[in-house]
Amino acid sequence: MNSLPHGGLALAALDEQLLQPGVKGLPITAPLRQGALGVQGWNVLRGDTSFPVALLKASALRHNLDWMRRFCAQYGVTLAPHGKTTMSPQLFGAQLANGAWGITLASATQVQVAHRFGVRRVLLANQLVARADINSVLQLMHDDPAFEFFALVDSVAGVTRLADALADHPLARPLPLLVELGLAGKRAGCRTDAEAMVVARAVAAAPNLQLAGIEGYEGLLVSDQRDDDLRAVNDFVARLAALARACDEERLFGGAQIVLSAGGSGYFDLVARGFAGIEGMSRPVLAVLRSGCYLTSDHGSYLRQIGELDVREEGHAALGGAALQPALEVWSVVQSRPEPGLAILGMGKRDASYDIELPIPLVWHRPGPGAPEPLPAGCAIVKMNDQHAYLQLPAGFDLEVGDLVGCGISHPCTTFDKWPLLLAVDDDYAVRYAINTFF
Amino acid sequence: MNSLPHGGLALAALDEQLLQPGVKGLPITAPLRQGALGVQGWNVLRGDTSFPVALLKASALRHNLDWMRRFCAQYGVTLAPHGKTTMSPQLFGAQLANGAWGITLASATQVQVAHRFGVRRVLLANQLVARADINSVLQLMHDDPAFEFFALVDSVAGVTRLADALADHPLARPLPLLVELGLAGKRAGCRTDAEAMVVARAVAAAPNLQLAGIEGYEGLLVSDQRDDDLRAVNDFVARLAALARACDEERLFGGAQIVLSAGGSGYFDLVARGFAGIEGMSRPVLAVLRSGCYLTSDHGSYLRQIGELDVREEGHAALGGAALQPALEVWSVVQSRPEPGLAILGMGKRDASYDIELPIPLVWHRPGPGAPEPLPAGCAIVKMNDQHAYLQLPAGFDLEVGDLVGCGISHPCTTFDKWPLLLAVDDDYAVRYAINTFF
Repeated sequence: MNSLPHGGLALAALDEQLLQPGVKGLPITAPLRQGALGVQGWNVLRGDTSFPVALLKASALRHNLDWMRRFCAQYGVTLAPHGKTTMSPQLFGAQLANGAWGITLASATQVQVAHRFGVRRVLLANQLVARADINSVLQLMHDDPAFEFFALVDSVAGVTRLADALADHPLARPLPLLVELGLAGKRAGCRTDAEAMVVARAVAAAPNLQLAGIEGYEGLLVSDQRDDDLRAVNDFVARLAALARACDEERLFGGAQIVLSAGGSGYFDLVARGFAGIEGMSRPVLAVLRSGCYLTSDHGSYLRQIGELDVREEGHAALGGAALQPALEVWSVVQSRPEPGLAILGMGKRDASYDIELPIPLVWHRPGPGAPEPLPAGCAIVKMNDQHAYLQLPAGFDLEVGDLVGCGISHPCTTFDKWPLLLAVDDDYAVRYAINTFF
Repeated sequence: MNSLPHGGLALAALDEQLLQPGVKGLPITAPLRQGALGVQGWNVLRGDTSFPVALLKASALRHNLDWMRRFCAQYGVTLAPHGKTTMSPQLFGAQLANGAWGITLASATQVQVAHRFGVRRVLLANQLVARADINSVLQLMHDDPAFEFFALVDSVAGVTRLADALADHPLARPLPLLVELGLAGKRAGCRTDAEAMVVARAVAAAPNLQLAGIEGYEGLLVSDQRDDDLRAVNDFVARLAALARACDEERLFGGAQIVLSAGGSGYFDLVARGFAGIEGMSRPVLAVLRSGCYLTSDHGSYLRQIGELDVREEGHAALGGAALQPALEVWSVVQSRPEPGLAILGMGKRDASYDIELPIPLVWHRPGPGAPEPLPAGCAIVKMNDQHAYLQLPAGFDLEVGDLVGCGISHPCTTFDKWPLLLAVDDDYAVRYAINTFF
């Protein structure tokens, strides 16, 4: 069920929709059929688009999709990429077409979006708690027998809420749940193995629920001491595996397999190694990674994390050497040169991530032919307002009003959510197609 | 032209659109006509909506609209509220219906959105620089003779770009521009009066351009020394007025009036006072404030700034005493209680502002009848991930999984842009109507 069955129609309908003037990045003055966007002949370097504009480099997307497919094959794991990163039906489709087992999501409304566009296997990496949210997911499961859905649970209170909801709205099949193991001082999840066992037993004992697996999120283990982080990640992955084994010894799991899931976008190799070769369980173990940011990577936080991963996994040369490539850029125009050393860009908190670090200026270009040039050392975005960025220029380097500046970002999730539509470009920055998001 | 002429149709069409399952906050499992949303009988306190959900308190919106209308009347100024705050056609309509002179915007695509929904007077508080952006605005001016548009300029380079564009695409009327005066070390704008005069003369000399006024933005004057800030604001406002007088003495202004514009959401009283009583100019002076955040205020940064304004303007009792009221709240559900003193909420960076400070927890409620209760001192959101918030609880106070928490936010702009649709509620949290945004 990796395909996009009737959701394919909804996906196709996106290309049939009329884009209205006013969509960020689009230079249109009359409605335009989205599917015709790629034949307008727009090129970002010629200054054909509106600015700011968010770009996805099509070749980098293809590389990353392929890289992750090969990674999973080589390490013997599957992938349910976190869809909250992009919330893009076209990108969900590309991930599923490149071997993803399903799509991970964070909320019930995100599940509805994914289902509407044809995703038929979802791992909700959260508890389902609010009444309306429980109901909307149960409705999808009721209406669509082909829709496979897994959610997390980390308390008996959570188990009871779901069991009560299912008693009121029975389904023809049990609701599969993964018990979440957490980390002291971090986010959700049982803090001790003993608590997790209590929750697992409660799931197994509830008539309409099924214990489908064990889940954790190691991505919060980020400190200044990277060696400590890596050790803590390995320990946590081992705890997840041990918890699964303990549940299996008590015969708490239902279903044909045991789902073991962890893995953000920084340590997924350690998770894959930790989950590899778990044997002797009562049924097959399916290791499911959940990296969302691999698809675009970035020029900041993930570039560094993937660089570390590359070093750790050097032996795995079959991955082809080339690591994940940054695919997401935000381009803007120099609005003002009010002082020496300062350029004001028409791009702000509405357009690019600022939660981990400010955007990373990469290249500049004066609209017209030719290729963009790297910005010299000393160029840095030092501040952003809602709609403006402050680009500091080193002595001896100047930009003019109207010059274009291409920025990388740090943390794809918080850039995607600022753009209802991104433009996929080829390596020459010719606009090829649109990517929609639904936040 | 304060009304919403044919844009009224586009506005009405919003209520005719079918909302699809998956819109954040909506508990729907099938498409719903937006106009029918208010008769579904949903109440947030009963837990009828999906969570998280962004709420606008209708009574606070009405109060703030009325307060600002009275403020402007009393101080003898007009208002072009910054529409980038909300980017909501319904709220633009409410502001215009309550006496706003026009809508201020930040980018060409924002201008297109506003025009599409009937706004017929726009002050673009930015330079128009990119070719596609210049073209799209000139197209609107060409196609719609009733569309009044003003933009900023702060360099001869900017003047030249616009003059060249108009030479290529002549309009039947001149393009009105305001020269932007800036502040050293801050954003755009001429740094000296002499530079500003050079730009003003260039505008006046260009055949297709018209010098319509002088503009500045004092809102960036925020430091730890409030007295210094206020003095700097007053000085800057005086400089704007003096620059206008100097331009008038050189007879550089065109048009029937001189537009003098400043005023964010923190110091607009000082701007109004500074612009009051400017006399002896060659034509009438129109003082235009641009506050955007007055409409919803907030529970953080603007609550403090409006508190200071209330103290400063105590003598103006005719405003009725009651200051602007916070109208925007984000409600979420307790997802997990993994440790004593820690509740994990299903709300994150995708749902609430975090650029000035984290959301401010106000009240809690166990879904059902009754009113929400204030959260005790010691409750604080100490961290947010993309989709989660970490709510610290004081000793002796507990929340359960499934309890609702209502949060105020700090900085409306960066919460509005996270919600394509917000729900307007009455004082009992019954859902009354939808507010759309177009970011």
